[in-house]
Amino acid sequence: MIETRLTRRFGLETPIVLAPMAKVAGGRLAAAVAGAGGMGLIGGSYCDAAWIDDQFAKAGNATVGCGFITWALSDALKTAPDLLDRVLDRSPTAVFLSFGDPMPFADKIHAAGVPMIVQVQTLRDARRAAEAGAEVIVAQGAEAGGHGEKRATMTLVPEIADWLAKNAPDTLLLAAGGIADGRGLAAALMLGADGVVVGSRLWATREALVHPSMLAAAVEATGDDTIRTSVMDVARRLPWPGRYSCRVLKNPFTDRWHDDLDGLVAAADTVAPQWVAAWEAGDVSVANTFVGEATGMIGSVQPAADIVAAMTREAETLLGGGWRRD
Amino acid sequence: MIETRLTRRFGLETPIVLAPMAKVAGGRLAAAVAGAGGMGLIGGSYCDAAWIDDQFAKAGNATVGCGFITWALSDALKTAPDLLDRVLDRSPTAVFLSFGDPMPFADKIHAAGVPMIVQVQTLRDARRAAEAGAEVIVAQGAEAGGHGEKRATMTLVPEIADWLAKNAPDTLLLAAGGIADGRGLAAALMLGADGVVVGSRLWATREALVHPSMLAAAVEATGDDTIRTSVMDVARRLPWPGRYSCRVLKNPFTDRWHDDLDGLVAAADTVAPQWVAAWEAGDVSVANTFVGEATGMIGSVQPAADIVAAMTREAETLLGGGWRRD
Repeated sequence: MIETRLTRRFGLETPIVLAPMAKVAGGRLAAAVAGAGGMGLIGGSYCDAAWIDDQFAKAGNATVGCGFITWALSDALKTAPDLLDRVLDRSPTAVFLSFGDPMPFADKIHAAGVPMIVQVQTLRDARRAAEAGAEVIVAQGAEAGGHGEKRATMTLVPEIADWLAKNAPDTLLLAAGGIADGRGLAAALMLGADGVVVGSRLWATREALVHPSMLAAAVEATGDDTIRTSVMDVARRLPWPGRYSCRVLKNPFTDRWHDDLDGLVAAADTVAPQWVAAWEAGDVSVANTFVGEATGMIGSVQPAADIVAAMTREAETLLGGGWRRD
Repeated sequence: MIETRLTRRFGLETPIVLAPMAKVAGGRLAAAVAGAGGMGLIGGSYCDAAWIDDQFAKAGNATVGCGFITWALSDALKTAPDLLDRVLDRSPTAVFLSFGDPMPFADKIHAAGVPMIVQVQTLRDARRAAEAGAEVIVAQGAEAGGHGEKRATMTLVPEIADWLAKNAPDTLLLAAGGIADGRGLAAALMLGADGVVVGSRLWATREALVHPSMLAAAVEATGDDTIRTSVMDVARRLPWPGRYSCRVLKNPFTDRWHDDLDGLVAAADTVAPQWVAAWEAGDVSVANTFVGEATGMIGSVQPAADIVAAMTREAETLLGGGWRRD
């Protein structure tokens, strides 16, 4: 058991939070992480209300939270104005916002008595998140899988920790990006984090909603095999703000289009359906496998509870002096 | 005192190695770091033999080593074939190679009985470095200042540590990139490193060969203010292999040219002399300040020995349980 401000504040047994990965972190995975003593978050992401309802149902009696892509939540509320209220009505353990300004949602979330976790990619955005009253700030480095930006976990965490210590000392700080085992957890605590958000390593679990061929590709890959790119978003015409790109496994699709975004825009009518079909089919030569650099530390697909337990045990050993080598 | 395989192997008092920063890490800085119990390395970089001789003289009786840009060393030996021998004749504490294949130099360095440190930016290159018989491998993340590549320290270190544990267990591993204080040092040890290579934080010291206006710019900047780019190398027509870019403070020069490299090539005859003149003058609106994301943790310019001592003390405290926060 590793006790931090996060575990005390949220009644957890280990300072590990499941990244609310879009379409991947469903109710089963969130419940598995919560059951193992961490915090489970459903990946509400692009705000499909029916999908979110279904995943909360699949989480059963487990206490879990929900994450949203902030700009997508803004869009969704135009056509489904009660979407956030419906999630808040469930008394989730937290609402997690990333990729956009949290300010428009802060009052509603706080009025519901639900803790607001805001993931940021820069120091500047951390200041904004604190201003919005985030109870927890997540510093996400560019090594993370999926969407993110440019700063690295190694510097973003301590720099935000210094700023919070001076300006918002009760705000908790989590590290995200590149954390896949107990070494990363222990390192994050040294850097000044109160815990970690884990994506890729919990993506490669039995409970995650991932195609088996993508799991196999990630197990095979090294960290050298990923790329941060916008090609999938351009192909799918998802309106991601330009500052955010997405880390995935390189494949012939990224080889072809990464340096030719204009060409991709022109070809999108043809290419997007191919990419989406390949995604459904698990064809990793066309569709991209959404994992971070930590893919190089993923050796097998396991139950999520085993990952959480192993990370915790390894970090405990390291924190107790096990980092010494003869 | 923090004891690791690195401190034992090299007789150091702390597992901190000065990055051999080009034109910045001169004899005075290398000697200061060595005197403080770390490893001091002169930045031999582009292989100006007279400059290297001068800096070894300035290091006086201190035991220091020397770093080279590997591809520049290959070039230099064509016109100054004894350049490496002259450094080896000094019995340096180590020769540090980065940015290129170390294999052509390995036999000569080992025949001289000098330890070879090889800095790498990918797992693939770590394998090559081990094959070349490197005694020490440095895993450099993209958050580092100056030249580097794309992987992050947070994942590159543990991934290479795993590979070395299986394939070359006696090879030491250091972390570089984003490490500016005791938090970074302690985190690197958790990730599986035997020590750290420190650039930016030792760049901002009294002994470093840096223009005062650049020091002031770095103290002022946050980590959000850096960019990894090739514009300075393109402007200066330095034959850097395309895979390596360089992290610097953003300024009007990077704003203008980062997304217009073709335009910069066309304008190089005019622009390069301007950039070089600005560099000499310390005009940070044109010439770039070479620091990494860790610039956000640099609050003042201090003697190098104070930095080494403070990093060590802070890491000791953290490793002893000081990471816990109430």
